[in-house]
Amino acid sequence: MSLSFIVPGLDEATSEKVIAILQNRLSQEQEAALVLKHAHWNVKGPNFIAVHEMIDPEVDSVLAQADETAERIATLGGSPDGRADSVIRHRTWKEFDLEGRQSTEDYLKALIEYYDSFIADDRKAIAELDELDVISSNIIQDHVQELEKFQWFMRSHLG
Amino acid sequence: MSLSFIVPGLDEATSEKVIAILQNRLSQEQEAALVLKHAHWNVKGPNFIAVHEMIDPEVDSVLAQADETAERIATLGGSPDGRADSVIRHRTWKEFDLEGRQSTEDYLKALIEYYDSFIADDRKAIAELDELDVISSNIIQDHVQELEKFQWFMRSHLG
Amino acid sequence: MSLSFIVPGLDEATSEKVIAILQNRLSQEQEAALVLKHAHWNVKGPNFIAVHEMIDPEVDSVLAQADETAERIATLGGSPDGRADSVIRHRTWKEFDLEGRQSTEDYLKALIEYYDSFIADDRKAIAELDELDVISSNIIQDHVQELEKFQWFMRSHLG
Amino acid sequence: MSLSFIVPGLDEATSEKVIAILQNRLSQEQEAALVLKHAHWNVKGPNFIAVHEMIDPEVDSVLAQADETAERIATLGGSPDGRADSVIRHRTWKEFDLEGRQSTEDYLKALIEYYDSFIADDRKAIAELDELDVISSNIIQDHVQELEKFQWFMRSHLG
Amino acid sequence: MSLSFIVPGLDEATSEKVIAILQNRLSQEQEAALVLKHAHWNVKGPNFIAVHEMIDPEVDSVLAQADETAERIATLGGSPDGRADSVIRHRTWKEFDLEGRQSTEDYLKALIEYYDSFIADDRKAIAELDELDVISSNIIQDHVQELEKFQWFMRSHLG
Amino acid sequence: MSLSFIVPGLDEATSEKVIAILQNRLSQEQEAALVLKHAHWNVKGPNFIAVHEMIDPEVDSVLAQADETAERIATLGGSPDGRADSVIRHRTWKEFDLEGRQSTEDYLKALIEYYDSFIADDRKAIAELDELDVISSNIIQDHVQELEKFQWFMRSHLG
Amino acid sequence: MSLSFIVPGLDEATSEKVIAILQNRLSQEQEAALVLKHAHWNVKGPNFIAVHEMIDPEVDSVLAQADETAERIATLGGSPDGRADSVIRHRTWKEFDLEGRQSTEDYLKALIEYYDSFIADDRKAIAELDELDVISSNIIQDHVQELEKFQWFMRSHLG
Amino acid sequence: MSLSFIVPGLDEATSEKVIAILQNRLSQEQEAALVLKHAHWNVKGPNFIAVHEMIDPEVDSVLAQADETAERIATLGGSPDGRADSVIRHRTWKEFDLEGRQSTEDYLKALIEYYDSFIADDRKAIAELDELDVISSNIIQDHVQELEKFQWFMRSHLG
Amino acid sequence: MSLSFIVPGLDEATSEKVIAILQNRLSQEQEAALVLKHAHWNVKGPNFIAVHEMIDPEVDSVLAQADETAERIATLGGSPDGRADSVIRHRTWKEFDLEGRQSTEDYLKALIEYYDSFIADDRKAIAELDELDVISSNIIQDHVQELEKFQWFMRSHLG
Amino acid sequence: MSLSFIVPGLDEATSEKVIAILQNRLSQEQEAALVLKHAHWNVKGPNFIAVHEMIDPEVDSVLAQADETAERIATLGGSPDGRADSVIRHRTWKEFDLEGRQSTEDYLKALIEYYDSFIADDRKAIAELDELDVISSNIIQDHVQELEKFQWFMRSHLG
Amino acid sequence: MSLSFIVPGLDEATSEKVIAILQNRLSQEQEAALVLKHAHWNVKGPNFIAVHEMIDPEVDSVLAQADETAERIATLGGSPDGRADSVIRHRTWKEFDLEGRQSTEDYLKALIEYYDSFIADDRKAIAELDELDVISSNIIQDHVQELEKFQWFMRSHLG
Amino acid sequence: MSLSFIVPGLDEATSEKVIAILQNRLSQEQEAALVLKHAHWNVKGPNFIAVHEMIDPEVDSVLAQADETAERIATLGGSPDGRADSVIRHRTWKEFDLEGRQSTEDYLKALIEYYDSFIADDRKAIAELDELDVISSNIIQDHVQELEKFQWFMRSHLG
Repeated sequence: MSLSFIVPGLDEATSEKVIAILQNRLSQEQEAALVLKHAHWNVKGPNFIAVHEMIDPEVDSVLAQADETAERIATLGGSPDGRADSVIRHRTWKEFDLEGRQSTEDYLKALIEYYDSFIADDRKAIAELDELDVISSNIIQDHVQELEKFQWFMRSHLG
Repeated sequence: MSLSFIVPGLDEATSEKVIAILQNRLSQEQEAALVLKHAHWNVKGPNFIAVHEMIDPEVDSVLAQADETAERIATLGGSPDGRADSVIRHRTWKEFDLEGRQSTEDYLKALIEYYDSFIADDRKAIAELDELDVISSNIIQDHVQELEKFQWFMRSHLG
Repeated sequence: MSLSFIVPGLDEATSEKVIAILQNRLSQEQEAALVLKHAHWNVKGPNFIAVHEMIDPEVDSVLAQADETAERIATLGGSPDGRADSVIRHRTWKEFDLEGRQSTEDYLKALIEYYDSFIADDRKAIAELDELDVISSNIIQDHVQELEKFQWFMRSHLG
Repeated sequence: MSLSFIVPGLDEATSEKVIAILQNRLSQEQEAALVLKHAHWNVKGPNFIAVHEMIDPEVDSVLAQADETAERIATLGGSPDGRADSVIRHRTWKEFDLEGRQSTEDYLKALIEYYDSFIADDRKAIAELDELDVISSNIIQDHVQELEKFQWFMRSHLG
Repeated sequence: MSLSFIVPGLDEATSEKVIAILQNRLSQEQEAALVLKHAHWNVKGPNFIAVHEMIDPEVDSVLAQADETAERIATLGGSPDGRADSVIRHRTWKEFDLEGRQSTEDYLKALIEYYDSFIADDRKAIAELDELDVISSNIIQDHVQELEKFQWFMRSHLG
Repeated sequence: MSLSFIVPGLDEATSEKVIAILQNRLSQEQEAALVLKHAHWNVKGPNFIAVHEMIDPEVDSVLAQADETAERIATLGGSPDGRADSVIRHRTWKEFDLEGRQSTEDYLKALIEYYDSFIADDRKAIAELDELDVISSNIIQDHVQELEKFQWFMRSHLG
Repeated sequence: MSLSFIVPGLDEATSEKVIAILQNRLSQEQEAALVLKHAHWNVKGPNFIAVHEMIDPEVDSVLAQADETAERIATLGGSPDGRADSVIRHRTWKEFDLEGRQSTEDYLKALIEYYDSFIADDRKAIAELDELDVISSNIIQDHVQELEKFQWFMRSHLG
Repeated sequence: MSLSFIVPGLDEATSEKVIAILQNRLSQEQEAALVLKHAHWNVKGPNFIAVHEMIDPEVDSVLAQADETAERIATLGGSPDGRADSVIRHRTWKEFDLEGRQSTEDYLKALIEYYDSFIADDRKAIAELDELDVISSNIIQDHVQELEKFQWFMRSHLG
Repeated sequence: MSLSFIVPGLDEATSEKVIAILQNRLSQEQEAALVLKHAHWNVKGPNFIAVHEMIDPEVDSVLAQADETAERIATLGGSPDGRADSVIRHRTWKEFDLEGRQSTEDYLKALIEYYDSFIADDRKAIAELDELDVISSNIIQDHVQELEKFQWFMRSHLG
Repeated sequence: MSLSFIVPGLDEATSEKVIAILQNRLSQEQEAALVLKHAHWNVKGPNFIAVHEMIDPEVDSVLAQADETAERIATLGGSPDGRADSVIRHRTWKEFDLEGRQSTEDYLKALIEYYDSFIADDRKAIAELDELDVISSNIIQDHVQELEKFQWFMRSHLG
Repeated sequence: MSLSFIVPGLDEATSEKVIAILQNRLSQEQEAALVLKHAHWNVKGPNFIAVHEMIDPEVDSVLAQADETAERIATLGGSPDGRADSVIRHRTWKEFDLEGRQSTEDYLKALIEYYDSFIADDRKAIAELDELDVISSNIIQDHVQELEKFQWFMRSHLG
Repeated sequence: MSLSFIVPGLDEATSEKVIAILQNRLSQEQEAALVLKHAHWNVKGPNFIAVHEMIDPEVDSVLAQADETAERIATLGGSPDGRADSVIRHRTWKEFDLEGRQSTEDYLKALIEYYDSFIADDRKAIAELDELDVISSNIIQDHVQELEKFQWFMRSHLG
């Protein structure tokens, strides 16, 4: 990795470590947006419209997270990779394998499980970033607060 | 493929053919949104801000196209697959292989080339859909009008 | 039927045929708005609020369709009849006969059945209008795209 | 009529009387919306655009009245009937029988006459509701204030 | 109770009676806002998101009622007491005793019961205020119309 | 007074009595708007900006009251007189005689006194209108609720 | 007249002359707002709604002129008099004497005549203010541009 | 004509034919905007304000049509000519020759006649474009739907 | 306390400690909203309107804090208690005991004193939460920043 | 030229002179809007999007200028001629002769040259109007301020 | 000073004189924005919130003045100097020397004194610019109208 | 430095240290707003409009930072000094010395260099504030995230 420039107050080695962590988060945020839309389109059953509509603001939220993460990588002099192949290449978590028209319950269960690793990996990233760059850590902290809240929404549906 | 239901006035075989065409278009529309964001983050050079900002409304536009295409699949009784792996599995066009921070010119050239096959495939889909379901054809016609206009924007930059 | 004037490029006989088709569609669009409100007020059960609110934008949508259809009739030199008695006089489809406070499921099933003939008749009108006046056909094509999507919403509820 | 529940502070007999009065008003409010649109589409002559546009906000106003009346019926434990056939079945007033493209003056005269019975029946309902349920009376009082103002608008046109 | 001033046209004794009635209503309106939020946070089960979101506009509505009631007390020369201890001290109705994460059905049942006394007490206040100050009565009449409509929403959920 | 027409359900004699009451109220509402602006421009002292800005929404409010009152007169078949000379000719209350740049306290005291008769006369009108036309009474009831609230604002300033 | 203060760059005698001119304009602007509303309420005939609605934005415009003129007087250290009696006391132009429900044509003719003196007096004021205070002259220049345009509107109606 | 580039899926000869048709339409759309404004400024008579205001949204609509047509030409690799001289050089229809302040009826008659050829030429272009480029045809179809509706507005005025 | 679920990356004991701290903060945030409204209604004196209006946005702010805190408790698997009795049961700070119509100065002094403990307790909670859950700590940090700013507003009033 | 009426305070000869000057300005303002759109569609090169978007608000601005100028002509009793042929007939300046797809630099140079005469002619008109009608002069002064600012924008691009 | 270009109709010497005058005004406008914010942050006492909030729109207003003045300099071919050192270098008026937390009265007195020279210098600039460039003079005339009105606000506070 | 009051939970010595750090940051934030506007007005060359417009939102952003920093100083009991002389007196970084109309590249290079010290000093302040007052540290952390992102924008332009 060769950086275009360095943010004042960070050195190159630190920047590279931060960028590597953020690229991994970027890929999962991008995938989450695809997965949420996938569920949005395929849910069925008596809570269809409520769950269908509950998911859309979370898609916007996760897309905004990806934008913020990618622009932080660029700000640090790195080059974010945002293509579909990059998402798969950086995937260090279990892929989302529910497909077809299924009940809202089945999709919510699968999404809750997906969010388990999403949140856990974000919290691990925060712990590492705290030692490297507090600004980048703040960004992911805001993301995880939102993710945890949405997980509560989903869990509450399963009662 | 087994459909959940059939739209009044279409038969099952026709519906399945329409769905197969739309799924292919969905995957490219989803990938295009990722590719455009990828370019949005990585362009550099004297036209940086103008190109950076020109791309964002097109991302929204292509995301809305994907949503419309996927919901048409669901409307026809099918199940749209919107995951990252699906994008790659359905890819019948050349992937986008420019990466890293590059000049606005290089990214625009690569995007114009990507749009060449995007538009050509949309026009081919329109021809096929015209024989099967005029409503689905209308949807892709609106998409290609927008794509062609954005390609003019990009071509005009290269002068 | 005596027309007040003729649109440039259409002859009188064609105009009269188009108007007759559109008057039939107008009456069903007006009735659909009444039927949807009727359901909106009478649904009950655990998905009450979600279904109650899902219906309202569709009422607005169908009212706008009726307005566009009626103004097309007037544009062609005809006189749209929009009174309650006209709705019943032009009814060539099965009336909506569910009444009283019933479960969301019962109302959705009855509405899906009502939409079956609504959509089928719109598609039949499109086929006829294509030979007479492409502008009028376009108008009904846009209407049916919306109706089919809303039918998917309702079908998804029944899972 | 069997009610689903009773509002705290009202008894069942009173509720049923209020509901019967409100159902009659609902049907006329629904018909008025159809009649106004009918006029909106068919007026012609030198004041066309002014009268055409003056009517539309009144349509919205009367649709909102119908919604409020129907939801009051439901609130009282009743089941509002909002279908076209119900409008005609409950019609205790003279139907609107002007049709075809006519001058703005002719339509305004016919509407003023229609409003004469509309307002008179609303005022009669208020007198009855005052003895039964002040909240329901308040609702119709607000409706008649608006109707009387619109009748002034129409009368002023005829000078 | 010593008043700061008297509204023109009311005497002191009347004003004091009105204020006492309104203070009681203020306390219940304030408590209702707390109770509704409490339910908003604790509901769970398959209708979670729909019920969670249905409650929030009612919170705003009840907070606005409390504001209007309190400002009417002040307008009459009195001093509204809006503290938590005041809510409990003025409580002449049964407290809301459901707690912990419970199903949407359980919370709706408990809220319907709470609204039974809320509405009954408002209607009783209206009867008393009609003899004292019509303006104050109008205010509570508007409040009870809204409360009864929300109770219908809740009852419809239980089907 | 000769009326242009009669509202359905009212007789001519009643209409004339209502119109006479409303014309008196119209003149005071119009004068109040002038008086409030007069104060708005001439206040001075340490609370200048707060009082200056507190008055403006009340001007809008009173202008809207005058518009509503005048349009009610016209709705009843009468002819409202809204000229400056009419204000003075109908003046049955004490004119506002504070002038020149004065302290906020002096203007508020004078306005409170002016509102004393304004409110008292509105309440007297309500009592009379209740026997004649409940819709007209409702209109003035809403006006006086607003006036009394603004008087509280002014009184609170004087502490 | 004793001024509270002097604007930097103007002397006291000049300020007093400017204030006297502006007070005269203020009174006519205030009266014009009353006269326009008077016409707004009393017009009748086939162009009722168009003329009724054409007048309202002009009322807002003239009220804003009065506000600007009065605040300029205050800015110059003077005290604007905005009461109804002041309007009549300062009246150096012919009062508006059309009353009762009359045709749109009659009201427009009377308003055009009223605007003749309104505009002529504004232009005379501009000529005098140009020698005294260019800022005050600018204010009245903007007013007269608007008045002349509205007079064209009215004249065009009479054709 | 030498094109800068070709849209994927169209050949050069086809593109040139489409561009020639669109340039002709562009010139008339641009002229129509000028003609409508010309009428907007010169109408007089008892319906002045209604007709004056009815025209303005149509100006915006026709300007947007010209923009869409010109950008389609550019999208196809052509160069739209949008100057006044180009409008006249491409004029294959009868110029608009009414001038001076005239009655609303005279201007509406002249505009209706102008729209006769405008619409007829648009419909002829649609027929030709259908064979060449469906996307370009769609664009003009949307334009003619709007033009025909506005012609109805104008015809209704003449009653 | 038995939790419904655990946020990924937190253990049950930690979650329970965080929830206990947040419940205490929730109760004070809810009480603060009541106390601020109480002051909003009862202040009087020369700064009445400025202080009355300064408080309202702070009420919204504190209500939003309570909502965020309660939803964090739910997100962590706990059950927030938001009833009036809960506020009093959790009160570990001095209650607000000023009542009746009092001067703005007296209410501001009492509120400043109330905020002293509010802020001190929030800062203590931050210190504890920093060791348990950084996301919860961030939430309260944002709250205290707002509270301290509002305290500056109040202190500035006392000069 | 025969005028329909005269503005109070101007004589006929003066009005005619003012109208002649304004008609000349109107024609150039109308042409400028066409020329700017022409450039908007035909620019190409690395600054395409920035220049393309910079031009659009100026089109709106110049269209608004033409509207204001034409309505001033009508206000003075004249009849503005706004047709394409009128633009050419009144052209006393050099036509814009750049065409085809050209670089942003070439179009900006041509536009700057066009604005040189546009501004110079506006300034000459101001000098003449100052002696005839200050209100008309004010209008063109505001126009030229905007034109000069846009010319700075264009000049800054050429560096 | 060497200019980049000359506005059509002005010569170089005139342009340079205008620019020198405007640069002086720019520096004071920039300083005024800093001074007003300084007061905004440091006022205290019983009118704190009213004065604190009254100042903010004036900051926006003065920043907009500086922007307009600087862009006029650039439009004339000059180069505005907007740095802090430039403000001090161009200062020909008495600096603002009140600091620390002080009463609203003290800050208002100091600001009124600061505005005395600000307005006097603007009026002197207008007199000079009238001979050189009326467009530049118009700009400063609009600025001083606003400044004088704000000075009235401040003076009214001191009563 | 003598403080007016102390925030609950901080001692006086700590508060004074925090205030000194924040005053230094305030001065640079205020200067940055001036410097950015200075560049906004003076840039030229082929990217003029893009860079000119890119800078304006950053000016708003930096002005908001200064406002937040100054209000934090006031919240802590200190007195922010916001005058031009204060900016220069507190300047511990290299002044911005580019002036006159220069290319966008030259201004961007100079701004990037200016931001190097701006960011470095903000990061140094964060490190010190973390030990003193976490709320103040949070404020500057948010500021530096924005500054670093804007520096990326600028660096990307230079490619």
